[in-house]
Amino acid sequence: MATDHPPDPGLRRLVAELLVVRASGHLADHQRRYPRWELANAELRELLELGVGGVILLGAGAAEVALRCDQLREWAGQPLLLCADVEEGVGQRFEGASWLVPPLGLGRLHARAPAEALTLAERYGRCTGQDARRLGLNWVLAPVCDVNNNPANPVINVRAWGENPDTVAALAAAFCRGLQAEGVLGCAKHFPGHGDTSSDSHLELPTLPHSRARLERIELPPFRSAMAAGVEAVMTAHLLLPALDGSRPATLSAAVLTDLLRRDLGFEGLVVTDALVMEAISRHHGAGEAAVLALAAGADLVLMPADAHQALAGIEAAVLSGRLERAQLEASAERRRAALDRVRPAGGDPRLAPQADGALEETLVRRTLETSTGARPRRWEPASHGQGINLVRLDTALQAPFLPLGAPALATPTAAGLAPCLVDGLGPRLWGDDPAAPLELGRLGSGPVLVQLFVRGNPFRGTAGGDEPWPAAIAQLVGAGRLAALAVYGSPYVWEKLRPLVPAPIPAAYSPGQMPRAQRAVLEALGLGHTGGQEGFTD
Amino acid sequence: MATDHPPDPGLRRLVAELLVVRASGHLADHQRRYPRWELANAELRELLELGVGGVILLGAGAAEVALRCDQLREWAGQPLLLCADVEEGVGQRFEGASWLVPPLGLGRLHARAPAEALTLAERYGRCTGQDARRLGLNWVLAPVCDVNNNPANPVINVRAWGENPDTVAALAAAFCRGLQAEGVLGCAKHFPGHGDTSSDSHLELPTLPHSRARLERIELPPFRSAMAAGVEAVMTAHLLLPALDGSRPATLSAAVLTDLLRRDLGFEGLVVTDALVMEAISRHHGAGEAAVLALAAGADLVLMPADAHQALAGIEAAVLSGRLERAQLEASAERRRAALDRVRPAGGDPRLAPQADGALEETLVRRTLETSTGARPRRWEPASHGQGINLVRLDTALQAPFLPLGAPALATPTAAGLAPCLVDGLGPRLWGDDPAAPLELGRLGSGPVLVQLFVRGNPFRGTAGGDEPWPAAIAQLVGAGRLAALAVYGSPYVWEKLRPLVPAPIPAAYSPGQMPRAQRAVLEALGLGHTGGQEGFTD
Repeated sequence: MATDHPPDPGLRRLVAELLVVRASGHLADHQRRYPRWELANAELRELLELGVGGVILLGAGAAEVALRCDQLREWAGQPLLLCADVEEGVGQRFEGASWLVPPLGLGRLHARAPAEALTLAERYGRCTGQDARRLGLNWVLAPVCDVNNNPANPVINVRAWGENPDTVAALAAAFCRGLQAEGVLGCAKHFPGHGDTSSDSHLELPTLPHSRARLERIELPPFRSAMAAGVEAVMTAHLLLPALDGSRPATLSAAVLTDLLRRDLGFEGLVVTDALVMEAISRHHGAGEAAVLALAAGADLVLMPADAHQALAGIEAAVLSGRLERAQLEASAERRRAALDRVRPAGGDPRLAPQADGALEETLVRRTLETSTGARPRRWEPASHGQGINLVRLDTALQAPFLPLGAPALATPTAAGLAPCLVDGLGPRLWGDDPAAPLELGRLGSGPVLVQLFVRGNPFRGTAGGDEPWPAAIAQLVGAGRLAALAVYGSPYVWEKLRPLVPAPIPAAYSPGQMPRAQRAVLEALGLGHTGGQEGFTD
Repeated sequence: MATDHPPDPGLRRLVAELLVVRASGHLADHQRRYPRWELANAELRELLELGVGGVILLGAGAAEVALRCDQLREWAGQPLLLCADVEEGVGQRFEGASWLVPPLGLGRLHARAPAEALTLAERYGRCTGQDARRLGLNWVLAPVCDVNNNPANPVINVRAWGENPDTVAALAAAFCRGLQAEGVLGCAKHFPGHGDTSSDSHLELPTLPHSRARLERIELPPFRSAMAAGVEAVMTAHLLLPALDGSRPATLSAAVLTDLLRRDLGFEGLVVTDALVMEAISRHHGAGEAAVLALAAGADLVLMPADAHQALAGIEAAVLSGRLERAQLEASAERRRAALDRVRPAGGDPRLAPQADGALEETLVRRTLETSTGARPRRWEPASHGQGINLVRLDTALQAPFLPLGAPALATPTAAGLAPCLVDGLGPRLWGDDPAAPLELGRLGSGPVLVQLFVRGNPFRGTAGGDEPWPAAIAQLVGAGRLAALAVYGSPYVWEKLRPLVPAPIPAAYSPGQMPRAQRAVLEALGLGHTGGQEGFTD
């Protein structure tokens, strides 16, 4: 199609500005972890020179990403949107920066101590903004404004700021204020609300069967609140809302993006799609067509098209054929420039060591920690327990940044005489055929068992696969007199399911966080103090 | 003792120059993985400002280490020795740089193709020197000059350049020439030869019971050869040689360092101790005393004292009390300066992406690959084999840089219908009680089994612990008609033990390397072609 028309460099540049492409945070091509999704440097540089308006980064430590951001800005030669999915502190994705407990922890604190939760949510935003700016990022793809009222939700879960609209609305707005104080852009997502879904839009297209009235009551308030707080961008959800649009997912729906978001909610900032490369979109539309549909529906920016060149060509052709108005694209580009004008310049010297806000990290861990009613911290006495087992469940040990060798969850129990046994989705199973006593205790060695479960997202549907019968396993260990203590890191729903199964004298504790700092707090609550082992992980 | 004497800033600075302290390659204190061994930045900076002469680095990716070297040089304000144990390419320790198969692979190639092995060893040195210089390192702690004539050796093994003196002598010298061409210092180790030991000097003090005549025949020739090739430094071994010194380990022995190394071998370069923090030394001597004994024996530089301030104070006091001659220390400092004069300045811009010499990496993998005699590459046909198992053995999945998610050893078999089952030292065991059939096949699932063993150092004495009965397990799988193929990565000794147990029609292959590139070559040799899976690891 494009060849029917004379080349128009102005149009090409205008279209390019509306793309946000994905790159590895690593500097070299051979360091990319997902080469199918992460552009090689030659292509990336070419696209930036063409005028591509933004890059989303994943991977590498904080220091390297700071160098990478410098490099990308240099290649672009224009103000560039540099963003990342840093919803739980920048250290969640870029090692060295602050790593905070997931937002849902504050959502739960909000029920007990609303003012404190608000203050902490604002500090959460400030910390994220400050760390992002140090790295050279100017756009934080948070807050998640979804209301996690469906515990079976496989993709939102602990990423949400709460389980009811009021809490999410209040905390998301506080987070936005914190980001703004640092001069970093935010992004409310996933519009119009992804909290009440139980399928994964990375794999398929979920449906939200709710009426407009219900959306007004549950899903929309947090977005309204973030907008009132001045959030600069909104990210669309890949989900079908038959009440609003019977055929197109929100990302591609004019009824959702233009009628609801722009007209009814009056949002004047940037509308960005969620990644178009996700199966919910890419299974149904080519890269060019998906981008055109998104812009036609009212999006300003196209995130991670499956193919950037196809997206460029597709949009260009759509303008030339009259399917898209050039004036609309110019308005989108203007919104992008206006957002960039609000950014405080990054002044980071990559040679400065990454900083983490240890005080905030620790406060969040302490204030979101839960322990079982009957259990009081007590000293663990190896002498009275003898040797035992530290049974650790995680998705995969091959990718467990929260569990470096020497992490408290390993080192502290080892020092107390509990030998580690890691169970993950790639290793041999510990499960037998008896549903009432599913753990093959004979394989586990003798002595008391400390159970530590690292589980997030849909309980037990990670790469560990299948439905793991932990409730039966805990009952089995209790019945055999072998449960020494229980620790749950991540999902509050798993914690709430297991906690009643642990009799009062046996300590149990929970943290929404999985990082070493959360492990230390949980183990202390279980009476396993931190020991300065040779391989001990540090603050 | 030191307080008896007036402070002497000149002496303090002279002594400081002779220390090489350890630091994390990461920029921030909270990123240190081994805080007990890695100095915090405040203390590190103080020591460098005091005049400490060198830093040994471990940890972080190539880009971050480049920033770190800049920072350390700035703190030192004087030419600084910046070194690392990069014996298998700089990428072995610092992700992003070249990662080469271990030297023993070339040692074995040398028997078949001596000229080619020599050429490759020199390229190995050039590549290591070039990568080191890009990062800002000026001292490569290689080549290992030990003759690995003891397959049970737990610490040398594949790090050695060969199993006989001639091979090691020739290849180590070629490696040195390569380093020198890049203007980077080398270090022949571990003097007078650590190849014929079967205990680990990190844990205890090994004894080498050989006569001087035997040393002349086996252990010393590689050191003589490296010296003839101009190697700038020699590192001492923590081992006892009763034929030379009945009481002191080589590191602390004047008979070894002064009489043998300086006088008899005529070495005029830098003599550096191995890390004094290792148990073989630190269990017997305090940090100050160990450093004094090493210098008194004839060492120039003290590497990783257990406590830098104690080492400084101890040496200073020894000079003031006349136990050490100040002139000797001045000669050592002069040797250090002379070595630094030979260094070509580092010109690396940290923002330049780390480079890896992919051509050399690939050549080394291809030329050191071994396959079983009867096996010819053939296409793996999932249809004819049905679903099966990819049984992967490794020390610990928590620290397996060679096995990122998506590495060929996982992704390629998965694409061929073989489900991964990772067995490591921290997970549930697959071993039962029957010595003749030790694998609990029932737990493994059905279908053909691809066995992939990642094993280095003393066969099966890693953190996997115990003696794993792989020979019996292989025989068991063959007997059950379930062995689909065998891959061994690392130890040639394990390969040689298992290879005869695999009947000719079943493919088997070996690489001395464990990195993704080696996996790809081995799996191809087994008939499992590389597939461009979604998570596929790239070149």
